[in-house]
Amino acid sequence: MMTDDSSIFIGGKPFMNYVTGVVMQFTTKGADEVIVKARGKFISRAVDVSEVAIKRFLKGQADIKDVRIDSEEFENKEGKLVRVSTIEIFLGKIK
Amino acid sequence: MMTDDSSIFIGGKPFMNYVTGVVMQFTTKGADEVIVKARGKFISRAVDVSEVAIKRFLKGQADIKDVRIDSEEFENKEGKLVRVSTIEIFLGKIK
Repeated sequence: MMTDDSSIFIGGKPFMNYVTGVVMQFTTKGADEVIVKARGKFISRAVDVSEVAIKRFLKGQADIKDVRIDSEEFENKEGKLVRVSTIEIFLGKIK
Repeated sequence: MMTDDSSIFIGGKPFMNYVTGVVMQFTTKGADEVIVKARGKFISRAVDVSEVAIKRFLKGQADIKDVRIDSEEFENKEGKLVRVSTIEIFLGKIK
């Protein structure tokens, strides 16, 4: 869930785990920036996590600084080319 | 699906309907900008539509210029406050 550079990768764990993870990066760990990342169907969830963290728990303390989307094409098990979308949501401390 | 300002709102119709809608805005209708919008669970799909349109059909012609996320809180039928996330993906012609 957490890597060195304060990235949080969104998957299928309980929703509030991720929200708490984001909030604690800013509050307990003193991070200036947290990047919420997701792929495919978890992209909607990454936006939800970021919005709840910022608007309900970090109001006036942190904000959305940038949002980047991209996609990667790769071969699946059946040898078929599939494209998977990605998102990176950059949250930053309000100075 | 289409409004005046070249917005395309993503819902549950077949995926390629939306991709074709985006591509035609640039090619047939000569738009300089198209905004792909979605709410809630359709956010992942809006990213997929944008990525397929740009990378497969509009390569070198249009690109992602900006991505904005937000959320709205409202009362549902049961009188409970719920938050719904939104996304706006700004696609623009490459000059």
